[in-house]
Amino acid sequence: MANYTKISVADDARTELHDALNLTGAEVSINALPAGVGVPFFHAHKQNEEIYAILEGNGKAVIDGEEIALTAGDWLRVAPSAMRQFSASADSGIKYICIQVKADSLESYTADDAIMG
Amino acid sequence: MANYTKISVADDARTELHDALNLTGAEVSINALPAGVGVPFFHAHKQNEEIYAILEGNGKAVIDGEEIALTAGDWLRVAPSAMRQFSASADSGIKYICIQVKADSLESYTADDAIMG
Repeated sequence: MANYTKISVADDARTELHDALNLTGAEVSINALPAGVGVPFFHAHKQNEEIYAILEGNGKAVIDGEEIALTAGDWLRVAPSAMRQFSASADSGIKYICIQVKADSLESYTADDAIMG
Repeated sequence: MANYTKISVADDARTELHDALNLTGAEVSINALPAGVGVPFFHAHKQNEEIYAILEGNGKAVIDGEEIALTAGDWLRVAPSAMRQFSASADSGIKYICIQVKADSLESYTADDAIMG
């Protein structure tokens, strides 16, 4: 496999990166919901931890029945078993990243995993 | 562990999320380099694949000696063994996310890993 892959992501409703970038340790999606629109279902995961970053706008998440207000700059970790649903505010769209990784898969990171050049 | 954790990330030079969000499958950092400034070293990784997202501004990466122009909206996968270094342009700062995950750790994702509510 090449030492790097790069793409430019347009402003679509949803862009999935796993296949586009040949990812092997994560799936990443970039999502945009217009004002007043929510993901039309709740879901949880079997194995995967999800990490959400709010890039623009605001809205809310409902996680195991709890409502969490979301605005640009917010980051969340959601446990695999938590039932979750995201929506935009009535008067603002929301743009967010969702990162899926296998829970408990990271063994070391940053200085402990680095090789200095 | 709680079913979710949330933080609001300020506009700092570098914010690391692993401990702040109790991540178990990734480390995520949000980084800002002012115009004309680069990370002052090259590095590679032992185990971890890195995924970079350019949020604002522009700059470049040097990966195994190859120069790659970067601008907002670009996403990259960098293989663990690749030697990399990032810098801002002379006339523009750059803000980017770096996601570290263990290469080959993802077993399933999205529909294959989902439990519908």
